[in-house]
This record gives sequence, C-alpha cells and structure tokens, in this order.
Amino acid sequence: MPVKNRRWVLASRPAGKPVKENFRLEEEELRDPGEHEVLVRARYFSVDPGMRSRLSGDSYAQALGIGETIEGAMIGTIKASNNERFKEGDLVTAGFGWQEYALSNGRGITKLDASIFQPPLTVTAAIGVLGIPGLTAYFGLLDMGKPKEGETVLISSAAGPVGATAGQIAKMKGCRVVGIAGSKDKCEYVTRELGFDACFNYKQEKDLVAAIKKHCPDGVDIYFDNVGGEMLDAAIANANERARLIISGQVAEYNRPEPRGIRNTTRFITHRLRMEGLVVFDYFKQFPQAQAEMAGWIKSGKLKYTEDISEGIETAPEAFIGLFEGENHGRRLIKVG
Amino acid sequence: MPVKNRRWVLASRPAGKPVKENFRLEEEELRDPGEHEVLVRARYFSVDPGMRSRLSGDSYAQALGIGETIEGAMIGTIKASNNERFKEGDLVTAGFGWQEYALSNGRGITKLDASIFQPPLTVTAAIGVLGIPGLTAYFGLLDMGKPKEGETVLISSAAGPVGATAGQIAKMKGCRVVGIAGSKDKCEYVTRELGFDACFNYKQEKDLVAAIKKHCPDGVDIYFDNVGGEMLDAAIANANERARLIISGQVAEYNRPEPRGIRNTTRFITHRLRMEGLVVFDYFKQFPQAQAEMAGWIKSGKLKYTEDISEGIETAPEAFIGLFEGENHGRRLIKVG
Repeated sequence: MPVKNRRWVLASRPAGKPVKENFRLEEEELRDPGEHEVLVRARYFSVDPGMRSRLSGDSYAQALGIGETIEGAMIGTIKASNNERFKEGDLVTAGFGWQEYALSNGRGITKLDASIFQPPLTVTAAIGVLGIPGLTAYFGLLDMGKPKEGETVLISSAAGPVGATAGQIAKMKGCRVVGIAGSKDKCEYVTRELGFDACFNYKQEKDLVAAIKKHCPDGVDIYFDNVGGEMLDAAIANANERARLIISGQVAEYNRPEPRGIRNTTRFITHRLRMEGLVVFDYFKQFPQAQAEMAGWIKSGKLKYTEDISEGIETAPEAFIGLFEGENHGRRLIKVG
Repeated sequence: MPVKNRRWVLASRPAGKPVKENFRLEEEELRDPGEHEVLVRARYFSVDPGMRSRLSGDSYAQALGIGETIEGAMIGTIKASNNERFKEGDLVTAGFGWQEYALSNGRGITKLDASIFQPPLTVTAAIGVLGIPGLTAYFGLLDMGKPKEGETVLISSAAGPVGATAGQIAKMKGCRVVGIAGSKDKCEYVTRELGFDACFNYKQEKDLVAAIKKHCPDGVDIYFDNVGGEMLDAAIANANERARLIISGQVAEYNRPEPRGIRNTTRFITHRLRMEGLVVFDYFKQFPQAQAEMAGWIKSGKLKYTEDISEGIETAPEAFIGLFEGENHGRRLIKVG
C-alpha cells in the first residue's frame, strides 16, 4: 500500500542567515518498494549546523540542489522489505534527511542492534554521541589534536554535541579543558555536569583575546573550533608553540555574505602552529571501534550527552535556524514517528 | 691589538615599512679576545626578510632590543683565537649579525671545510642555499609538503632563495611547479634557468584567484608560502583536497599596521586542508645530512642558486628595505671583508 511522505526541500538559497522561506514542506505518495528495496519509517532526524554550507551553491562541489530533500541523519524502522539484509521492524540509521519515509535499495543503511540501546544509552545516540557529532569530537581531538596530559584544550560551542563530547574526552586524557559558550546556563552545564575546568560566555566579553588569556593562563595547546572568525583568531593569539587548531565547524562564517577568516597568520611561523580541517568520514573504517569505546564510556558514566528534541516534522526549519542563534542545548533532533 | 668594529643597531622600531632611520651604524673598539674567546673578521653577512618580525616589539617574544645588533648570518675568518677548537685563518659561520667583527666564546660557531667550496659551490652558499634559506626549502617541501609525483606545487617569491630552491627540489620529485614572482625577469629566470613549468608576475594580475587557476588547471596540492595575505587566500581558493599549505614567510604581512590574514577558512573543512608554520631550527639535527644532499645536487648541476651581493657594510639597511620592494634577485648578502 503506498504511503504518503512529507519532506522538507530547499526552496531557495539563503542570503546570509537562513529563513523559513528557504524551506518548503512537500507531500508525495511513495510507491511500494521494488525488488531489493526497503521502506523506512523515520523516528528521528537531525538538524546540523554544518549542513548550512551545502545550502549555498557557490564554493562547495556538493551543494544541495533546489527542490532536493534537506540533509540529515535519520533513525527509523523498516516498514517493508524486499531486501534480504533487512526485515520488518529492524532499527536502522541512514542519511535520509528531513522526511517521514524513505525508499532505498539498502545502500548506506546501517542496522542497529536495539539491545545495546539500554539506559543510559538512548536510541538517538546512534545519530548523536555515537554518530557524526560524537565521532567528529573523538577523531578530531584524539587523532588530530593528540592531547597530552596537562595541556590546555579550548573548545568553542562547548555545550553543543561536538564540543561537549570533545571536552569530556580531553578531561579523560588529563587535560585542562576550557569551554566557550553563548550563555551562563550553558557554561554551568559544561562545568558542573560535564566536568570542564572553566567556561566563559562570549556574549559577555568585549575582548575575546583577553577572555581566553584569563581562562587559559598557560596558553592554548589545542583549540577545537566549531565557530571560526574572531574566536579562531583570538584562540590563535593565545596559542602556545606547536598548538593544534582543529577546524571542525565554522558556524560564524556560514551566514556571512563575505567571510571574515583570520588575521594572525604570522603566528603560524613564530609559534609553529598547525591548523587542519576535519572531515570525519575520512575515519570511516575506524567508526565501529570508536563507537564501542564511547558506548563503554557512556555506560560507565564517564561520557554524558544531552539531546534537544523537537516534536513533529513541521518544526525542523525553525530548529535549524535556531542553531545559528545558539539557542540549542545539546544535539538537536526532530521526533517524527 | 684592539680592533675597530662597525655594527648596525636598531635605532627605532619601524611603523610599517622599515626606513633607513630605523638603523644606526655604530663604531666601537673591541678588546682583545679573553680566555677561550675568538675574534672573527666578517667576510659576508645576510639580510633576511624574516628578520622584520623581530624589529617589532609586540607579538614576538624574541624581539630585538633597541640598540642591539641587527640579526643576520655571517661568514668570517678567525683572526685571533684563545679557543682550542679554532685557529687563525679558519673559515666559520655564525649568527653574528650586521657587523665587521665579533668576539665570541665559540658557542654557536660552525667551522667550515673550505675544501668543499669549489665551483660551482661558492663559500657564500654556507649561509644561502646550504644555510637557512636552502634548509627551509628542503625541510618545508619534503617533510611538511611530502610531494608526490604529478602533484602541482605553487611557490610564491619564486625567485627568492627559499622559493627557487623549493621549486627545483619539487621538480626533482616529479611535480608540476608553478612560481609567482614580481617581475617578468624573475619569471623568466625561474622557468628558463631553474626549470619551473610556469610562472606569473603577480603585479600584472588583477585577480589572483583566476591567475592561479589559469596556471594550475589541476588545482594546487602544495602551496609554499613566503608571502601570506591575499596570495595565501588565493592559493587556498585553488587548493585541492588534502592540500598542504606551508607557511614559511609572510612578507606581505610584516609591514602592515593591521594584519590582513586569510578569509577562506571554511575550505579547510570542505577540502581537508592543512596549514602549518615552518621553523627550520626544529630540524637542526638533520641539517648535515640535508646539506650534504644539496651539495651533491649543486655539484651535479641539478640545483642552482643565485646571489645578490652588495659591497660594504654601509649598504645593509637599503639592501634590507629593498627586499620588501621585491627588488632582490636571489639570496641577498653584504660583502664586508
């Protein structure tokens, strides 16, 4: 029996900050699955700040086309299957984007073992702390950052899913961890709940260089950057010799008509700095090992995570736009089924 | 018998481009060498663009003090020795700066084997192609860049001592090498004499991004940066996935009241870029092996170098200032004895 699917598509490209009009909710009837195909019913999908760059058509080879489904990670259940790998009721995850159903030949779908998602591990962790945000934190910090005991690790968007995970892993490695967030509540969350050593609210600071200096009196050895722009420059101004700058997100840049970038490139020579862009899919083969290790940390209470879940597919564009206002607290997900 | 020494000292800190008034020529009488000391008579010393950052007092921990001797590499001859490591007539090199004589306890002095400096290898190579500029090219390109056959290597200040050496080594590694220089003559020099595949005069180009694209149709895999600023940004705009950006010099930044930096940091994520600052002294232990390898290349005609020598200590400040006008052609040295 054909099902009615709703999906958010790109209606127009944002000029600067995305607005609701850039998105359009479309309804379509899906045919029954054909040979080797499955029908997936979504339970949750994610809204990700990094997706912003794919809404602009210019620089990025992989830009989304107008009318295409907005990207996101999905957790769903197999509703019907003509594919021997899957049976009805299987819990799966895939990059099916902002929609209620998906038809697929099975490629790119990962079957989840429902039995491992026991408290404190929720099923949504599969697209959160054990999904791309958590893996980004894991490989960015450990492989690119190579933290050493006693080093200072500075993290922007500290209360977001990437920053919060990176900070807790850095604590496990014996580092002093300093967060930057956009509210007093978020700072209290990362220091009291997650064990960061310090955190400051950048909205209350006029001089970012001085604020970082105050909270990182021994300088910065690793900067885990989710923001870019002035914050990245201020971190560079406080960078120690051989500091590692991990470019994970550039949220402050995505909505600017002209990028701001950084000024302080001469410090790369005087302080032997290294700045590197992180694409987590480069570590694809190591995902299972990392997920198993992080699941262990979660079960033993060493790694905590927070989710910020909106109900209903209608809420997705607003939830996405709110990411750039810094209003989210933890991984932002949409519950659709 | 005491000798009369002349030396250039820092008279005032340059605001922007250095001017002659920032330097003062002082005369002093040197005492005879004491116990374990040697007296060195300079033959040549170098004027280096990288020294510019040490003239400003702000950011750099190792800034030169007012009244201190301007830094530079020296080749000289031992005139008198109370140190068993040296005897009169020995050919030596050390960082004694812009002066005619130096008294030293011997620390930091390297004795040169005069017999290896046979044509085509001149004695000045010891502070040029076999000195810091050549070693910077060698380790920057080979260790940080890790060039692979068929890759495109883009080099700014291509006719300078670092760029010219880096380009020739990249050619030996089977790369396509594209230079950027400030005159038609320099471009002809690097393509006709040094074997670069292409070169363009940036002063004739309005759009640096387009100019690089034209000369690097397959994109840029390694950018060896001696300049910074707009040129670095334009190279990043043409960078391929996993491109390496080697920050060796930032000549375009040194004289600016406010640094310009780069804008395009989001490409670090979309193209997995890595940017790293080079401090050649980090490779100190590997210097002899690199110098031996480069000396072999010079003798077999694979590696060429050019020197731009001014006569007389009086010419040093003008020679230094001229570096920022792009007027030098090869390694700039002052002959003083």
